[in-house]
Amino acid sequence: MGNRIRIGIAGYGNLGRGVELALAQAPDMALVGVFTRRDPATLQLHGADVPVHDMARIAEFSEAIDVLILCGGSRTDLPEQGPALAALFNTVDSFDTHARIPEYFAAVDAAALRGQRVSVISVGWDPGLFSLYRLYGEALLPVGATYTFWGKGVSQGHSDALRRVPGVKNAVQYTVPSPAALERVRSGECPQLSTREKHTRDCHVVLEEGADAEAVRQAIINMPDYFVDYDTTVNFISAAELQREHAAMPHGGHVFRSGQTGRQTQQALEFTLKLDSNPEFTASVLVAYARAAHRLSLRGETGARSVFDIAPALLSPKSAADLRKELL
Amino acid sequence: MGNRIRIGIAGYGNLGRGVELALAQAPDMALVGVFTRRDPATLQLHGADVPVHDMARIAEFSEAIDVLILCGGSRTDLPEQGPALAALFNTVDSFDTHARIPEYFAAVDAAALRGQRVSVISVGWDPGLFSLYRLYGEALLPVGATYTFWGKGVSQGHSDALRRVPGVKNAVQYTVPSPAALERVRSGECPQLSTREKHTRDCHVVLEEGADAEAVRQAIINMPDYFVDYDTTVNFISAAELQREHAAMPHGGHVFRSGQTGRQTQQALEFTLKLDSNPEFTASVLVAYARAAHRLSLRGETGARSVFDIAPALLSPKSAADLRKELL
Repeated sequence: MGNRIRIGIAGYGNLGRGVELALAQAPDMALVGVFTRRDPATLQLHGADVPVHDMARIAEFSEAIDVLILCGGSRTDLPEQGPALAALFNTVDSFDTHARIPEYFAAVDAAALRGQRVSVISVGWDPGLFSLYRLYGEALLPVGATYTFWGKGVSQGHSDALRRVPGVKNAVQYTVPSPAALERVRSGECPQLSTREKHTRDCHVVLEEGADAEAVRQAIINMPDYFVDYDTTVNFISAAELQREHAAMPHGGHVFRSGQTGRQTQQALEFTLKLDSNPEFTASVLVAYARAAHRLSLRGETGARSVFDIAPALLSPKSAADLRKELL
Repeated sequence: MGNRIRIGIAGYGNLGRGVELALAQAPDMALVGVFTRRDPATLQLHGADVPVHDMARIAEFSEAIDVLILCGGSRTDLPEQGPALAALFNTVDSFDTHARIPEYFAAVDAAALRGQRVSVISVGWDPGLFSLYRLYGEALLPVGATYTFWGKGVSQGHSDALRRVPGVKNAVQYTVPSPAALERVRSGECPQLSTREKHTRDCHVVLEEGADAEAVRQAIINMPDYFVDYDTTVNFISAAELQREHAAMPHGGHVFRSGQTGRQTQQALEFTLKLDSNPEFTASVLVAYARAAHRLSLRGETGARSVFDIAPALLSPKSAADLRKELL
């Protein structure tokens, strides 16, 4: 163990598994335990030789863990777990309900200040890395326009919404950026783009036995918030095809900042992410920010932080001098 | 003036002019003076209504300026000015001689600590923004490879080298990334690329009256460090064509990080910059980091910093709460 940063994982789904794998690439960090609400005896880890504990006992480990990485979902797990665990541990999480970030930040901040811990919230790629690029773009080119495109990739939220439609047995939804819109933005023309113009939505749906395909299609394409504002295609496929062709979780996207400096000089930044596994990449980002949280805590800092508050050097295991020499 | 950050410009070439223009886009900052080694009476600013002072008198202004932006060159100006001015002012500079950054950092750090000031060194896009992307890429995908490509754009250093060749009256050099190499990197194959495979160099040269074109071409393509390791093309053109077609200073490039998470899962980041004016963009970056330097100084921090040490939120005029709400 030596001086390695002691990491705990709270919640062991796709993201928790990704964190376990990402920690194997971080020689300065060590996984010391996994916490689950399932029966710990039933959990099969992906190679790490560490104990699995019942989540109910997590408070007993508050001195044995340097940073706890929260791998629960944003809809029901994190709103409760985030503040509760921030009072006991340094934490990092991937809370991604954009509209509720201010209230979540406030709740976690209060708990972390009370517990004298550091919590980095909303870490991942959006919110996370894409947020950083939006900030850098706007700060460096204050006169201009920012565009975020997502995909092509699987949206978990939209796939879940499909599965709640009566008659749907299983489904996967891909968010696809419109090539024409991407081209217009890339050209620097700074277009006004409607929601419909920016992305299309491709649904692959397995019907329940006897379900009415056209009724399901209508229910999907007219679903408020999720689909009605988009051009949505619905493909009905077999369970076998869904399993064979759509089991991976790729994602990615683009952040653009097009701006003008001086007298109408065009300047453009583009950031592109191409991920074969969304949860594994999100997990890698969480692990790097766990390193930062530990370092902030060692300095005596307390409270909630976002990626905006973290100096980039804190993410790397290298020394400041090595970073300047090798990467600056 | 109000509470605006008071900015001084030291050195008024292309970069200093760019800073003047960039400050016009920063409502929280105010230019208060320009310093030059030329006769101040001969300097024509680009619209700012501020005094121009002799650089020799700059020490008199150490309490009247919150951050001094150093706009001299890296070859002869900054190695001397950087440490000297860091003892008197909070400074930001674009020192870009990569190999000499460690010693420059040490000299500026010692001076800034002595003067209890903050200095952010090597700000711009490379070193600067590209350095940040290299760091983020490596920290978030620790198993992988990083590639930096420059161009297509005008390299000032290589253009200067051309102008030192006997028989050359004037010249501009474009650094051009190889499309084949870009494609291989973008595909995720993580190739080993030689210097010659990554970039080509296009030279546009105006000959002195009576110069021997073939001798000039040979002198260029065999020049050590600058050209011999590249496929270099030399075009001889008229002074009028050089002025008409090659007076702009576009630049840009790409930073790639291709990595593997988990068990051979491919993940890729690409960052692209397309600049119609290299000095104007560099100036915009300097201005954003001047804001950060001022804030660090207000907190009581002292010493040298690089872009790696600056939390992104410090670059934006927006509050932390607004940033979380609007950009996270």
